[in-house]
Amino acid sequence: MPGNRYDRGVSVSTDDERHELLELRYGKGKAPEDLRWNDQIAGLLRHRSVRTYLPDPLPDGTLETLVAAAQSASTSSNLHQWSVVAVTEPELKAKIAATTRMDSMDLENTQINEAPLLLLWVADLSRSHAIATESGDSGDVLEQLDTFLVAATDAALAAQNATVAAESLGLGTVYIGAARNRARELAELIGLPPLSFVSFGLVVGHPDPERPARIRPRPAQELVLHRERYDTSAWREVVEEYEEEFRTFRDDVGLGFKTWRSSVVRMSSGVDLMDGRQNLDETVRARGFLAR
Amino acid sequence: MPGNRYDRGVSVSTDDERHELLELRYGKGKAPEDLRWNDQIAGLLRHRSVRTYLPDPLPDGTLETLVAAAQSASTSSNLHQWSVVAVTEPELKAKIAATTRMDSMDLENTQINEAPLLLLWVADLSRSHAIATESGDSGDVLEQLDTFLVAATDAALAAQNATVAAESLGLGTVYIGAARNRARELAELIGLPPLSFVSFGLVVGHPDPERPARIRPRPAQELVLHRERYDTSAWREVVEEYEEEFRTFRDDVGLGFKTWRSSVVRMSSGVDLMDGRQNLDETVRARGFLAR
Repeated sequence: MPGNRYDRGVSVSTDDERHELLELRYGKGKAPEDLRWNDQIAGLLRHRSVRTYLPDPLPDGTLETLVAAAQSASTSSNLHQWSVVAVTEPELKAKIAATTRMDSMDLENTQINEAPLLLLWVADLSRSHAIATESGDSGDVLEQLDTFLVAATDAALAAQNATVAAESLGLGTVYIGAARNRARELAELIGLPPLSFVSFGLVVGHPDPERPARIRPRPAQELVLHRERYDTSAWREVVEEYEEEFRTFRDDVGLGFKTWRSSVVRMSSGVDLMDGRQNLDETVRARGFLAR
Repeated sequence: MPGNRYDRGVSVSTDDERHELLELRYGKGKAPEDLRWNDQIAGLLRHRSVRTYLPDPLPDGTLETLVAAAQSASTSSNLHQWSVVAVTEPELKAKIAATTRMDSMDLENTQINEAPLLLLWVADLSRSHAIATESGDSGDVLEQLDTFLVAATDAALAAQNATVAAESLGLGTVYIGAARNRARELAELIGLPPLSFVSFGLVVGHPDPERPARIRPRPAQELVLHRERYDTSAWREVVEEYEEEFRTFRDDVGLGFKTWRSSVVRMSSGVDLMDGRQNLDETVRARGFLAR
């Protein structure tokens, strides 16, 4: 076993970094106090989505390491109802990038072409279906919304572990929800069997140090955290305070002015602005899901 | 800032542990070679689902640390369409545990009562809906299957980061998919607003050292990993080989004989054996999802 595969390079954190990361994540004076801290937690809080990459290939063993991390995540009832398709061929990546085009913003996902690896995370009931029907059973559970959700959740837990592992190796990642913009075409491009679909993509590569990514601030914890029972009263004040961090972040990275609220409105209304993602229901039904 | 909050206790890994963890995860001689390794990756590969807990409460700041890790995960379009309800009250936990009862196996989720903390991860479009409709917009995108999936994926990415953080602190966790067995009752118990539902629970606590959890083996990587395009040919052989690891694990932990294939068949067929989870479609529609 080569000793140089063991690398603690990016993992060691300090109390100074704790302060810095919490301020970047929540804004000055807005982070919860007395957080617990260690190297792994520091690694999680360092996360940023990286959209600019060097073309350098990944070191040998990287993909298998990410998959080992992904398989170590929980999987519902130990059924492993997910798959991952690792795409490195430039021509195939270019075809896939074209399926993720965001017409509403006239934007390409250029990072798919820049980075050396695109992981397509598949909610995958195809193996369960084959095993069940070959045993003479109906597989009718696989046509339920609950099972659709189980497979999608399995894929997400696996992908997040791969993300954490990639970042611990100094790599950058970004999720590609636009992998569902033309879900049928993408499924055909990579030869998916029935009862599977790409839930999202994940770009992995070496971040370009000349175009560094920034940590994006989050709203205060009260937006998402409820104690004992859901409290509908706290979030409006949090949103008001978050607008300041949102504006500062956009200024800092050279994006034009808009409020966070306006971005929520923009993303929540107008099915014709979904860049094709309104196809998902039809696509997954055609692929055997949700037949009930 | 108290210095004792910085703890590298459980994080340091060794090359010996790498061998041990890979063998536990894949079986002797079945792990991929030349994996990359560091403390964070070791932490991910140490994962096991813990179903036996001490009643000890969690140290101050633990919940906030898990939420900071969760918020540091990617969230689709920076919309934060998830929430988490942290339940510690024993009476409320007991009521929730009752909603997760698995009638088909005559089993209670006793770990919910044993452990000090239950996190309920909510796919939550309620804030987006309020913001959109208060602006005079329709919020029609929120009624799409794609947006249901976005919220569920947001919740899963957040929860997995919380899991990784909890394990780095020496805590144990187990996901509770059975939180959907009686999804409507659970939503009422914790007062969820419309356009939100509990996607799954996560128990967090101190593992009982007298009843230690084991790392559950996974099938070889070829079950889930595809290169460039999906390959439907590899998984059957992997499953054959996995049956041996599956049997050995069940023997070791004192469970009766069954094959992995039979567990897949059992979970894939017979909607009346879903312990109520077939309610999900009706429940989420009643809560405002998928109206299209």
